[in-house]
Amino acid sequence: MNAATTHWILTLVCRDQPGIVHAISGAVVEAAGNITESQQFSSNDTGTFFMRLQVESGIDRAGFEAALAPVTDRYGMTWELDVVGRPLRTLVLVSKAGHCLNDLLYRQRAGQLSVDLPLVMSNHPELRGLAEFYGVPFEQHAVTTPGQKLAFEDRVLEVVEQHDIELVVLARYMQILSPELCEALSGRVINIHHSFLPGFKGANPYKQAHARGVKLIGATAHFVTSDLDEGPIIEQNVVRVDHSRSPGELVAIGQDEESRTLTQAVKWFAEHRVLLDSARTIIFK
Amino acid sequence: MNAATTHWILTLVCRDQPGIVHAISGAVVEAAGNITESQQFSSNDTGTFFMRLQVESGIDRAGFEAALAPVTDRYGMTWELDVVGRPLRTLVLVSKAGHCLNDLLYRQRAGQLSVDLPLVMSNHPELRGLAEFYGVPFEQHAVTTPGQKLAFEDRVLEVVEQHDIELVVLARYMQILSPELCEALSGRVINIHHSFLPGFKGANPYKQAHARGVKLIGATAHFVTSDLDEGPIIEQNVVRVDHSRSPGELVAIGQDEESRTLTQAVKWFAEHRVLLDSARTIIFK
Amino acid sequence: MNAATTHWILTLVCRDQPGIVHAISGAVVEAAGNITESQQFSSNDTGTFFMRLQVESGIDRAGFEAALAPVTDRYGMTWELDVVGRPLRTLVLVSKAGHCLNDLLYRQRAGQLSVDLPLVMSNHPELRGLAEFYGVPFEQHAVTTPGQKLAFEDRVLEVVEQHDIELVVLARYMQILSPELCEALSGRVINIHHSFLPGFKGANPYKQAHARGVKLIGATAHFVTSDLDEGPIIEQNVVRVDHSRSPGELVAIGQDEESRTLTQAVKWFAEHRVLLDSARTIIFK
Amino acid sequence: MNAATTHWILTLVCRDQPGIVHAISGAVVEAAGNITESQQFSSNDTGTFFMRLQVESGIDRAGFEAALAPVTDRYGMTWELDVVGRPLRTLVLVSKAGHCLNDLLYRQRAGQLSVDLPLVMSNHPELRGLAEFYGVPFEQHAVTTPGQKLAFEDRVLEVVEQHDIELVVLARYMQILSPELCEALSGRVINIHHSFLPGFKGANPYKQAHARGVKLIGATAHFVTSDLDEGPIIEQNVVRVDHSRSPGELVAIGQDEESRTLTQAVKWFAEHRVLLDSARTIIFK
Repeated sequence: MNAATTHWILTLVCRDQPGIVHAISGAVVEAAGNITESQQFSSNDTGTFFMRLQVESGIDRAGFEAALAPVTDRYGMTWELDVVGRPLRTLVLVSKAGHCLNDLLYRQRAGQLSVDLPLVMSNHPELRGLAEFYGVPFEQHAVTTPGQKLAFEDRVLEVVEQHDIELVVLARYMQILSPELCEALSGRVINIHHSFLPGFKGANPYKQAHARGVKLIGATAHFVTSDLDEGPIIEQNVVRVDHSRSPGELVAIGQDEESRTLTQAVKWFAEHRVLLDSARTIIFK
Repeated sequence: MNAATTHWILTLVCRDQPGIVHAISGAVVEAAGNITESQQFSSNDTGTFFMRLQVESGIDRAGFEAALAPVTDRYGMTWELDVVGRPLRTLVLVSKAGHCLNDLLYRQRAGQLSVDLPLVMSNHPELRGLAEFYGVPFEQHAVTTPGQKLAFEDRVLEVVEQHDIELVVLARYMQILSPELCEALSGRVINIHHSFLPGFKGANPYKQAHARGVKLIGATAHFVTSDLDEGPIIEQNVVRVDHSRSPGELVAIGQDEESRTLTQAVKWFAEHRVLLDSARTIIFK
Repeated sequence: MNAATTHWILTLVCRDQPGIVHAISGAVVEAAGNITESQQFSSNDTGTFFMRLQVESGIDRAGFEAALAPVTDRYGMTWELDVVGRPLRTLVLVSKAGHCLNDLLYRQRAGQLSVDLPLVMSNHPELRGLAEFYGVPFEQHAVTTPGQKLAFEDRVLEVVEQHDIELVVLARYMQILSPELCEALSGRVINIHHSFLPGFKGANPYKQAHARGVKLIGATAHFVTSDLDEGPIIEQNVVRVDHSRSPGELVAIGQDEESRTLTQAVKWFAEHRVLLDSARTIIFK
Repeated sequence: MNAATTHWILTLVCRDQPGIVHAISGAVVEAAGNITESQQFSSNDTGTFFMRLQVESGIDRAGFEAALAPVTDRYGMTWELDVVGRPLRTLVLVSKAGHCLNDLLYRQRAGQLSVDLPLVMSNHPELRGLAEFYGVPFEQHAVTTPGQKLAFEDRVLEVVEQHDIELVVLARYMQILSPELCEALSGRVINIHHSFLPGFKGANPYKQAHARGVKLIGATAHFVTSDLDEGPIIEQNVVRVDHSRSPGELVAIGQDEESRTLTQAVKWFAEHRVLLDSARTIIFK
């Protein structure tokens, strides 16, 4: 392929019906494109069709969009067109625990995670050094009063607008977002949450897990909705533990699962592999 | 070792305090025994000491017990002495689903699970052929009225007494045991339960798991208490699933986890590897 | 969908080039079909395009083939059209160990594995009872001389022809197939092989694995080629072990991995999810 | 426990024989100690007995050693006495790839890995910034000629002596150690190596793994012996991959397994949980 070739990602969502693949592949032919990766899913639950394509083509964005328009119009598609590898503009929120932030920063630098990190925001000062070692600005504001919380969230929205942020990552940010912020950023906020079999509600779940003698602990990365910890699940992992582990050790083990689970979820999101089907995610991995 | 050597399992539970290991290993020396496997655990939660030993010795049971008596008396120990590989007298209760029963029967015959199965009891006729292929008597009674349920449970207790049953396995027995039966067989009934991250309550959990798009499904083997599905956990496993799985496929995948998790729990119990520390299990695997 | 709707599986292999998806989806539209599952892969190694579709349509086979013909001709495609859930005609070869055969039979009966098993062949008598419990004829011939081996393999080919066998499964059949038989059944024979990290050559690999203290043991299901144990890999699994395991226990643990790995490979093959790209398999799972 | 209580680790190796546990637990009683963790293993292969104890006691080192001496003398034991949590003096050798070093440094700072890192040595300059961010001195010497290699290894031995180094970690150090250095540091050098099922020899194993279509890739942490990559295995992990992964992606996935596997092995070694039984490791985890 020549130097002008672009590697495109195209995602599509519409009502399921016959002929979609033929129509969309026709638009790709029209755009002189070659499909290099393709995944689709028809949801029986909602009657919705989902598709993700990677397409190599020498065409520019305007040309590709022109080729797609008749099809996306005809089928009433929600669609997105992006370039493979474009760094996703991402805002990270943290508190004191650095395990998730460290993993995100290390992998971003190692070239394994295509995100652009204009800022890390925190309600505590502890992680400034880590962020700055990786050259990422760090902004800290106390969040101990309702007024401070409101101000912090206003600042988040300001940063989102100023940097055209596409994803907000709660990397162990230990504050509950207001319903208004959840609503404003719906589908663009990923949180990481410890997870147990069976689940435990209330304070200090690791202590409860210990008391019950659970044999598996893990983590769930999910979209944030105003329904706390109940948003659509993106990824989950578990690891085996035994009776000899103290509550403190369970925390350390759980943190490893949190890091890798959150990073995985961010990576898939950045690659447009995460689509929403009502309360479920479709993951085109 | 000569022909008369026996391979003993000794389990001990007592209040934690210094000197226990020295005392008990002294009794083993007294019994001319050689410790071939040893595990211990001191619970910080309850201040209890747990130990499991395997000992090779030419001594007979009376001799071994005599050597142990001064130590078990002095420390107020709860203890059990058994012979490695002795088949555990086990009663299996089933309903219609055969996956767990098949796994238990196959492994018992393959020599991988040391249990003696004098009877399979069921509230449905479907699994008679499977049980009888493996030469295990099968007894079926309808359980559709409260009176029938009472009669079934009375028959269970009768079988437990008649065959000196040491373990009752609920291998997808789809009836809730009465609190009275739970109490009567406390610490001797193992159940298998599907498990999800996060947990789901109520009817048709696989359907709920599907709706929420869970990425891991699994199974938990636990002791039965009158607190439904909340008894001490013995073993847990999970397997990864994705959005393309139908609720029916989730059921099939979950059944595999149920079989292997239940069989594992039964095996550990039969080998005296499962001890209770309040609501937690200590697993000496 | 009405009663006459069929759920088709279509697999395609051809030289990679632009326009294939558009052409094939056009043929599906022509056949009044709806694509319910679609996976594709372009191999950079061999320049080959692979596709697997599931299509719902009211059309009959002749009609579907007529709609496909212009496309498959134009692109020089190798293709197959089958009906979802049609049982694959499968011949199983065994020796003495029953763990793999038991798993195949149990899952076939449980409706989790869509195979038709007209015969089990063995060079030993031990597994007759198991096969016959599941109602599968069992044929045993000693294979201790070169002449007997030749006769056995001739009989295999005869059975393959007589029953129009599509897959031969070596479910712990402990004889090496002749190069001639491998050639005659190329791409239609699946074997299961224990696997270790690192690999061990020669006799008694479990003993070698034990001596080296490996921490993971597993199994590999692969196509049989005349290059012994080096055919394309279909599926692999491992499980964790530790220093306390005897060589005998490693064997038992390894057998579990063998069963589930082999059954998985057979299931994917029966669903036309396994395609060959030179020495690699493409698995559309 | 009062302020003067110490938490000791005691490891013992001797010829297996009756009475060892009783004798050693007697010495613990003598030292007014309480056993909080205990693991033992009798190797049938070599007739060797291995034990690891954690003991709480108010006694000082000299007192504990005096209490142990009669027993360790009588049984001809090799033994070590250390304090729980004492940082292990560790020298890390690296080349260009930073994934293993990053994981070691991050976990050391996070308090999850009890090591003292006086120096990182490398034959390349790339990782200086990472080491120095964590406050660890970094020393770089080119190793492109036999003379430079000799000088590098002499410097390693000098550092080992100067800092009383207890463990040398090859964190993707891409040079083969000379047999003389392997010998001089026998049992004190841990390496990390990618691993595949089946194994691949020779250059570019990821490319070979890709060509064969392996479904699992992983890593093995092992002691370095002069027999390259064949030293006793400490830990192994694998992760699942599929046909769509490029050789480059296999490398990235493999690196994650390398990091976590190496860090785990270092952690166990630092906690005196790794003992050698001929070519096997006993891991008391």
